This record gives sequence, C-alpha cells and structure tokens, in this order.
Amino acid sequence: MTASLFTPRTIGHARTPFADKNDVPKGPLAKHVEEGVLEIDPAFAEGLDDIDGFSHLIVLWFFDKAEGFALKATPPGSSVARGVFATRAPHRPNPIAVTVVELLRREGNRLHVQGLDMADGTPLLDIKPYLGNVAGEVRLGWIPEFAREQQQRG
Amino acid sequence: MTASLFTPRTIGHARTPFADKNDVPKGPLAKHVEEGVLEIDPAFAEGLDDIDGFSHLIVLWFFDKAEGFALKATPPGSSVARGVFATRAPHRPNPIAVTVVELLRREGNRLHVQGLDMADGTPLLDIKPYLGNVAGEVRLGWIPEFAREQQQRG
Repeated sequence: MTASLFTPRTIGHARTPFADKNDVPKGPLAKHVEEGVLEIDPAFAEGLDDIDGFSHLIVLWFFDKAEGFALKATPPGSSVARGVFATRAPHRPNPIAVTVVELLRREGNRLHVQGLDMADGTPLLDIKPYLGNVAGEVRLGWIPEFAREQQQRG
Repeated sequence: MTASLFTPRTIGHARTPFADKNDVPKGPLAKHVEEGVLEIDPAFAEGLDDIDGFSHLIVLWFFDKAEGFALKATPPGSSVARGVFATRAPHRPNPIAVTVVELLRREGNRLHVQGLDMADGTPLLDIKPYLGNVAGEVRLGWIPEFAREQQQRG
C-alpha cells in the first residue's frame, strides 16, 4: 500500500436542504429528489465551462462525517452486514462518495442541480459529465432481497 | 480550501491488457471492452463480500500518471479546450477517475471485469455497486458536436 497518493482538495461545497447528515433519506431504497446548488470555489469556476450541455453530472464528494472505516457495513434498516464494497456506506477505506445529479442550470460558479443526497456544506471533490447508461440489464445484488424484507415488515 | 481532507490509500491494482496509458483507447468516443482483473489487497478482500450479485460496479482509481492540473482540457482528437469538469481528462484538481465495469466473476480477492480503461498496475481507490441507470434522456454536451467533426474529417 502506497503511503500517500495525492492530497485531496475541496473544489467547492454542496448547498442542500439537509442541515444534518441524519436528515438525508438513507438506505438502498431511498429516493433523492431534492434540489440544491453545487457551489464551486471561484478559483475553479473556469473548469465549469461547457458543462451546461450535459443533462447529468457525476459528483464526487467527501464523506466528511465518517471517521475510520470497516470492511463490513450494515445498511440502514437491515440486520445483515455486507462487504463495504457492495454498499454505498460512508466508512470506507477512501471516504469518497459518488452521486449522479441532474443539472438544471449553471449560474457562474453555481450549478443548480436535482438529486442531492449530502448534508449542507459537504466538501466537493470533483464533477464529471455523465456519459451514458449501462447497456443491458442491471442486477442489484442483495438489494431486491432487502426490499422484500422491508415490504414484509410493512 | 481545506488543506488536507483525508489520506487516500490504495485498495488494490488493476490488471489490464494496457502496458502503458497510451495504449488505452482515448477520447469521448472510445469504446472500452477489454477484460481484466481488479486485484484487491488481501487486507481489504473481506470488503468484497456480497459483491457477486451486482452486474456492474463503479471503480474509482487514481490518475497516477497525471501531474498537476489545469482548468481547461483539450480532448484527444479535438482542437477545442473545454472546462475540465465537462471532461474526463486526468489533470483535474483531484486526480480521481471513475469507470463503470461489468462484473464477470469474483475469485477471492480478484474481480474479473469487462470494460477497463486504465493501464496495467493502476492503483484502485474504491469499488461501489452500480445501482441503476439515469431515468429519461441523457444529453451529452459538446460530445455530439465533436463526433460530427470527427466524422467530417473521415
């Protein structure tokens, strides 16, 4: 294992309706429809040029509330621990989150987007264009089983 | 800007048919169909439990050949510089790449996958389950214009 690969830096912050991370709908069945703003540091705003034409963006952000990591994670609402790489749990070896959002409009260094799932003030690491859907069927591992359990519980 | 958010660590390495990064098909129209292996460090292998049921994975990896960054990037084959956040260019403020691959099978700490686009030996940062396609139409910004230019050049 390499000691240090690079030094992550904040490119901006998320402005979202979630004052606290516990306000964010959690778990594999949660739907994220909230609007908010990706506020990019003015020093990086030039990097947003040409972004307007993309309907969806991949946002990389820092799980800034997660300390340490574990190789197993128990999804919210579940009683079964899963391998952390088979989940979106925050306590991972590299605390980096990925969220796909819809771009509504750009205003200078502010991107108005829909589909946010992070607390207000969360540090952003990167933005990339979403280049297309996976072809063919997407299989969702343990999640359908989890959904059935939830349904049975009512 | 925060000085240091966290210390990235290598969770494993990609084993791919590309001896050099210049062997990887590049540019927004490149297709990535190569098979290879995500070899996870044995210390992290337990984190792969339950991953088998997912058809596709999101792989986060380190652009280890990219030094420094620029806010504009000129895509391979293009003459137009674009905002770096509207591209997948490696020289970005946080040199983190995202690739979606198809999971063929797991053998212990080795994930056989299809769709790799990084050089052999590339350090891996994270693996997450791909949870579904974007709903509705995906618009691709400057890329259709680029595709037309390429076609006109023959």
